[in-house]
Amino acid sequence: MGFLIIAPIAGLASIICALYLYYYLSKQETGSSKMKEIADAIKIGANAYLRRQNMTLAVFILIMALVLAISLGAHIALAYVFGALCTTLASYIGMAAAVRANVKTANAARKGLNEAFPTAFFGGSIMGLSIVGLALLGLGVLYALCTLISIEFALDSILGFSFGASALALFAKAGGGIYTKTADIGADLVGKVEMGIPEDDPRNPAVIADNVGDNVGDVAGMGADLVDSYIAAIMAAMVIGWGIGGASNEIFTILPLLIASVGVLASIIGIVLIKIWRKDNPGASLNRGTFSTCFIFVGLMFLVIHYLELGDSGLGIFYATLSGLIAGMVIGITTDYFTSIDRSPVLKTAEAAKTGAAINILSGFSYGLMSIVPPVIGICVAILASWHFAGLYGVAMSAVGMLSIVGIIISADAYGPIVDNAKGIAEQSGLEQEVIDVADRLDAAGNTSKAITKGFAIGAAALTVLALFAMYGKIVERVTGEALVMELTNPTVITGLFIGAMMPPLLSALLILAVGTNADRMIEEIRRQFREIPGLLEGKAKPDYAKCVDIATKGALKELILPCVLAIVSPLATGFILGKEALGGFLGGSIITGVIFALFMANSGGAWDNAKKYIEAGKLGGKGSDAHKAAVIGDTVGDPFKDTAGPSLNTMITVMSLVASIFAPLIVVFALL
Amino acid sequence: MGFLIIAPIAGLASIICALYLYYYLSKQETGSSKMKEIADAIKIGANAYLRRQNMTLAVFILIMALVLAISLGAHIALAYVFGALCTTLASYIGMAAAVRANVKTANAARKGLNEAFPTAFFGGSIMGLSIVGLALLGLGVLYALCTLISIEFALDSILGFSFGASALALFAKAGGGIYTKTADIGADLVGKVEMGIPEDDPRNPAVIADNVGDNVGDVAGMGADLVDSYIAAIMAAMVIGWGIGGASNEIFTILPLLIASVGVLASIIGIVLIKIWRKDNPGASLNRGTFSTCFIFVGLMFLVIHYLELGDSGLGIFYATLSGLIAGMVIGITTDYFTSIDRSPVLKTAEAAKTGAAINILSGFSYGLMSIVPPVIGICVAILASWHFAGLYGVAMSAVGMLSIVGIIISADAYGPIVDNAKGIAEQSGLEQEVIDVADRLDAAGNTSKAITKGFAIGAAALTVLALFAMYGKIVERVTGEALVMELTNPTVITGLFIGAMMPPLLSALLILAVGTNADRMIEEIRRQFREIPGLLEGKAKPDYAKCVDIATKGALKELILPCVLAIVSPLATGFILGKEALGGFLGGSIITGVIFALFMANSGGAWDNAKKYIEAGKLGGKGSDAHKAAVIGDTVGDPFKDTAGPSLNTMITVMSLVASIFAPLIVVFALL
Repeated sequence: MGFLIIAPIAGLASIICALYLYYYLSKQETGSSKMKEIADAIKIGANAYLRRQNMTLAVFILIMALVLAISLGAHIALAYVFGALCTTLASYIGMAAAVRANVKTANAARKGLNEAFPTAFFGGSIMGLSIVGLALLGLGVLYALCTLISIEFALDSILGFSFGASALALFAKAGGGIYTKTADIGADLVGKVEMGIPEDDPRNPAVIADNVGDNVGDVAGMGADLVDSYIAAIMAAMVIGWGIGGASNEIFTILPLLIASVGVLASIIGIVLIKIWRKDNPGASLNRGTFSTCFIFVGLMFLVIHYLELGDSGLGIFYATLSGLIAGMVIGITTDYFTSIDRSPVLKTAEAAKTGAAINILSGFSYGLMSIVPPVIGICVAILASWHFAGLYGVAMSAVGMLSIVGIIISADAYGPIVDNAKGIAEQSGLEQEVIDVADRLDAAGNTSKAITKGFAIGAAALTVLALFAMYGKIVERVTGEALVMELTNPTVITGLFIGAMMPPLLSALLILAVGTNADRMIEEIRRQFREIPGLLEGKAKPDYAKCVDIATKGALKELILPCVLAIVSPLATGFILGKEALGGFLGGSIITGVIFALFMANSGGAWDNAKKYIEAGKLGGKGSDAHKAAVIGDTVGDPFKDTAGPSLNTMITVMSLVASIFAPLIVVFALL
Repeated sequence: MGFLIIAPIAGLASIICALYLYYYLSKQETGSSKMKEIADAIKIGANAYLRRQNMTLAVFILIMALVLAISLGAHIALAYVFGALCTTLASYIGMAAAVRANVKTANAARKGLNEAFPTAFFGGSIMGLSIVGLALLGLGVLYALCTLISIEFALDSILGFSFGASALALFAKAGGGIYTKTADIGADLVGKVEMGIPEDDPRNPAVIADNVGDNVGDVAGMGADLVDSYIAAIMAAMVIGWGIGGASNEIFTILPLLIASVGVLASIIGIVLIKIWRKDNPGASLNRGTFSTCFIFVGLMFLVIHYLELGDSGLGIFYATLSGLIAGMVIGITTDYFTSIDRSPVLKTAEAAKTGAAINILSGFSYGLMSIVPPVIGICVAILASWHFAGLYGVAMSAVGMLSIVGIIISADAYGPIVDNAKGIAEQSGLEQEVIDVADRLDAAGNTSKAITKGFAIGAAALTVLALFAMYGKIVERVTGEALVMELTNPTVITGLFIGAMMPPLLSALLILAVGTNADRMIEEIRRQFREIPGLLEGKAKPDYAKCVDIATKGALKELILPCVLAIVSPLATGFILGKEALGGFLGGSIITGVIFALFMANSGGAWDNAKKYIEAGKLGGKGSDAHKAAVIGDTVGDPFKDTAGPSLNTMITVMSLVASIFAPLIVVFALL
């Protein structure tokens, strides 16, 4: 079908835009030699981390590819490697842009907001456009080529491709998350608390590691996480579409690719609009750009579905996709309530800090738990609505709908760490207060958009894993020839549910302990430097930044092994020992607690963070008061919640679902029970 | 059938033993007038709380009874009131014994361990025997009488009875949990932290409220919680037994009552054995008593099943029941690992306190999350094994097996707060150091047995709600005439799962916030007294204990309303709006996160508590060090985790399951979807 050419073209267009923006960025000035020096240190640190991460990842991928080739066939193994390569390449490009855009933003901030904002935003857009472009190009080309053999062959291949992308996401998210919080906690506990020096102070040996962490955790990690959901949602919708439409209605198989192509187009237009519109209110510009993208996407999607003449089922699919998109926006906005600095949950958490750290922590913990209510209801409404309009296929399409605009979401998200870095560079290189004020305004806009996109990412992941869950059922059905019955009163299903539900808390615990262990190493090193380097605290000697970067890197990669292996082995063990029904239960359980823990951890962490910021803005005694000390403890507890464990869970549950589907043909045959 | 007389006889025997022990206790001496004065203050405070709780409860029960009478019939409403009355009466007797045994134990401690241990243990046994006795007597008589009309009528009635018992449990657990932590946190934060006076110091205005809290939270609350599971498990097994055996095999309906009767007998023997054996090692005596009870129970149960000549199915039932009992013990012991003061999790949590409160909290939080693994696997093995041996009935019987020995479990559990109180009375009335040392040894034994019984209680609740879940399916089947299909890919089932899974975290948040709100009121009052009563800190004036007791009481009852109402309304809303399949999913979801959150909260709290105690024993800098301050913060965070939210969840999920089953006949007819 001629339609098959559309996704590769859209992907290519996205990549070309990214390259153009990279060219635009390269023309901007870098600023003083002092600024360049700091930026270079961050660049070198980030590259060092990425190189080492990708070396470890390469070993992991080769082993996995070998397992896949032997057990399931060479085409799946090759597609797996291809998927990992595409997304890894994209994350390299994105990082390269981010670690260049930070210093250029700081420099542009000297000329004002109007100059600085586009530099930062386009820096982020390079990540957004290149990763979505390479994903869609890879997926589209792979699928188109493989259909020359057969559609089933092609579907198996894109499943492998998706699994490969998720392997990168797993490493980038868990490893980046451990890295960034290791550096952050280490820098804060020794620098701010013990030594009494301010944040981002160049005397702190961990300051560069901390800046690197923003990039590897938030730029590379978040990008990989969202694109992982993106590919998985499209792929799952295609597999389910084939199960429903078959050869006679092949359009259902290809439609997810077309919708995603439309989404890329809408994202590009949204980015251009942000460039055209006025830039003196960055927060409003970002939000306006995101909402415009949504409207353009919906309009274009309607035209496409109308053009395809699918009749009533087309309209149903349109509504299903729309319900996912609306749910995504509603989840993002309601979640924002629980972490906004001017809303009751954060204010009460800050207030509680007056009674001490314990009450502050209990308060943020409780509001985090309560924050799961609106998104869970949003997800449920999206499930019921999309099912009502287009059945199982509708649920998958609602995930595709939500994720189609991921190009602009990642762009807005990567903007955050870029301006955060820019602010750090401005402070470390001693730029004027007006410049730092501009950087502050850029940063505040980043925080708002980040809260919304974080809720969006979790909602998208939830719908995606539900689509993957449905796909698992379809794949088992295709292999065994009969429908997979996962009855809740079946004891193996209940057992699977319990074991699956146990995994997200367990993985969270391992990731948090990993941060603790690695932060301990970092703290020791920072203390050692302050002790052994004469004149460091007085600013007369330079700290050994590279050593701290090295500790964060090595530790992160060492600590991510166990949780990553568990995420892959646990569904296999459940499937091979307890059977395909139990594995279905396992997936259901992991999705439910995965979503709950991801939301709760992200939002508790956000509430503590902003409660601290509220006090630091001079309220309730301000900096240095007892309430502030209590809030700092809360914020530190929240660090691995919101930036390590919480966001990693999305990827972990996606990986588990993909493992189940990929190995389903073997599990059906070889299960013990 | 003549068998129907056995349960009432066993219940009566249990009550008679309790009355004998009460007589034994009343003969013991009370000690000095100073001791009597303190004990009286605790007694008055506890009675004041119970009276006010039961007045609120009475209003709640009348409204609920009215709803039940109108919607489902007068017999269910009457049985409901009867169930609430039986357990309320038992909790009165238990509390009356506990608030007398505390001072008598303190007095007996002056003569040594050999005198003090039986006084404390028998004080606890009165609670254990009277509550189990009244439950079994009430259930047995109600069932026997109602079978004169019809078995279905009798089964409906005992369902109402069970619901009534759970209403008390809900109030006692949530209210008592809020009360005890309000007083504890208030007393600690102002007394220990701000004023620097030791624990249990008579100058602290909240010290009596704190002692009262141990009784209303741990004696009345824990007893009500366990007996609630006990009644529910027996009742569910009877309903499922009827569904399987019907009139032709009525023995399956009655067998749970017989097994429970055997369990009561075994518990009585176990208590006598503890009296006979040497008493100089209280911890060993308690454990030996519990294990002996298990063995005696298993032996007697085998004889009963053998005598009934049920053939192979009898053997299957025996193994199913046994698997529940073994799972209960294994869960108790493995859970103990995560909270023991000499094991790695607690040691590492204490070690982490050296780096500050945040890392201490992250560490205890992580180990709490990891601690769910062994019990969840234990529960899964029990499900698979009991299902393998006797199907759905086997799962219900495994819960009955676990809970049959609850008489001795509650006895050992109520022992804890009695010796805790005794220690407080000894300290406040200025007894000699040797007496306090004896009280300390009694207390240490209480902590070990408490950790084991807490794990046991959660395991038992999990199996019980699974039995209730199965019963819900059977009841829907009875009403509609066709099996209830709860397929995991059905969107309403998934929606129900999500909503149900959301409830335990939400209820936990509400309960924790309730403690925070109420503790704030308490803190203000304690500060006011120190400020306004001249000479209080110097020990020259007496504080106003009653005012603090009053604040804790009023606040606890006010704050428990919202979570209790939510626990009842949420399953009804799900059922009436989304239908019976969604309600099934709801129950499944609530069980899974309920068990996970209950375990995680109980064990995180236990780990922080013991990490603090480890440091207070002189390790890592000892009392007053920075590590100690950090550990105190962790302990305060853990307080509402382990004593309010965690234990309340058991009851909450039981109540939700009962609500679903009771209203199933209406939901089937009136559901919207």
